Amino acid sequence: MPYVNIKLTGGGEAPSAAQKAELIRGVTELLARVLNKNPATTVVVIDEVAMDNWGIGGESVTVRRSRKEK
Amino acid sequence: MPYVNIKLTGGGEAPSAAQKAELIRGVTELLARVLNKNPATTVVVIDEVAMDNWGIGGESVTVRRSRKEK
Amino acid sequence: MPYVNIKLTGGGEAPSAAQKAELIRGVTELLARVLNKNPATTVVVIDEVAMDNWGIGGESVTVRRSRKEK
Amino acid sequence: MPYVNIKLTGGGEAPSAAQKAELIRGVTELLARVLNKNPATTVVVIDEVAMDNWGIGGESVTVRRSRKEK
Amino acid sequence: MPYVNIKLTGGGEAPSAAQKAELIRGVTELLARVLNKNPATTVVVIDEVAMDNWGIGGESVTVRRSRKEK
Amino acid sequence: MPYVNIKLTGGGEAPSAAQKAELIRGVTELLARVLNKNPATTVVVIDEVAMDNWGIGGESVTVRRSRKEK
Repeated sequence: MPYVNIKLTGGGEAPSAAQKAELIRGVTELLARVLNKNPATTVVVIDEVAMDNWGIGGESVTVRRSRKEK
Repeated sequence: MPYVNIKLTGGGEAPSAAQKAELIRGVTELLARVLNKNPATTVVVIDEVAMDNWGIGGESVTVRRSRKEK
Repeated sequence: MPYVNIKLTGGGEAPSAAQKAELIRGVTELLARVLNKNPATTVVVIDEVAMDNWGIGGESVTVRRSRKEK
Repeated sequence: MPYVNIKLTGGGEAPSAAQKAELIRGVTELLARVLNKNPATTVVVIDEVAMDNWGIGGESVTVRRSRKEK
Repeated sequence: MPYVNIKLTGGGEAPSAAQKAELIRGVTELLARVLNKNPATTVVVIDEVAMDNWGIGGESVTVRRSRKEK
Repeated sequence: MPYVNIKLTGGGEAPSAAQKAELIRGVTELLARVLNKNPATTVVVIDEVAMDNWGIGGESVTVRRSRKEK
């Protein structure tokens, strides 16, 4: 019955459909293994966020990436 | 004053503008009726999520729909 | 398959268990009626937020309520 | 270490990259000033919501804007 | 840099501190393995939701559990 | 009309009512200054998260704090 929301950077860094499927499967299995949660009602929603819209350290990921940091 | 966030599948399953207006009106009326909340400050945000990005039962809706399940 | 999150003020304004059940039922029915969504996988999560932690108009609900506004 | 999510209307009302950078910087500084939170691990995510998908007062912003209200 | 929010039932079903640590570690590792995300800036927030406040199938988990369903 | 959600650690690190009021006022002013958003309909919700429930770097803040890191 859990609900999981994963937010990560999209655009040039967006995961492929296969990678998203792996995240969905992996999180669902983790909750089944650790907490015995029923996979049938475990919901996972992935949000891909534009790099201008994600900030860390007081600046956008766009600016951060332009300095070659990761 | 309540805040309501509705997440549902978009893409080929995205609701029309008229359907979204009906959800907004319906949720706002529900909160006014049940809890006497003021409609003027009731906020509703609808997120349409790509079918690759929504998982249930450990797989994406894309895969699930391809098996004709609902 | 939709996911709905309702945030409202708690504490002295918290809804009763019966009112929360009515919200859950009402939102689930709304999504079934307007969008034909399956109630069996419609998830509703209600968050009750302390009045010091909810702001509108630049001030907390605690302060706002103390001025008898609604 | 805080996480901040800002939701606002997009489309014709979407903020520019420079405005989003100013929001990210401003919120991060606010949390550092008021609560001494470390900017290096302060995360800000901005969601731009389509005007059909944002409701207030029981109607969408699209409808509301068409009446010249703000 | 991802942000993950896990919502699950609390109260009598609340996970232990050790189980929550395992969820945090597991999700962080999953994102590093699948998408090469940096664990140092991966944030995980777990919300424990009261059973009266979680609805599925149009009714609260409290009611659902009282019928011995899972 | 924006909606802002701030999540930060609670428990022994919880902000005071005065600090929360300052966050609410500060964020509301920032959105008015940068984007000319109307303070009357700007909503801010602050979530205080238990330190066992917040993870960064693959471990909970509880564990992280016990090593005197910040």
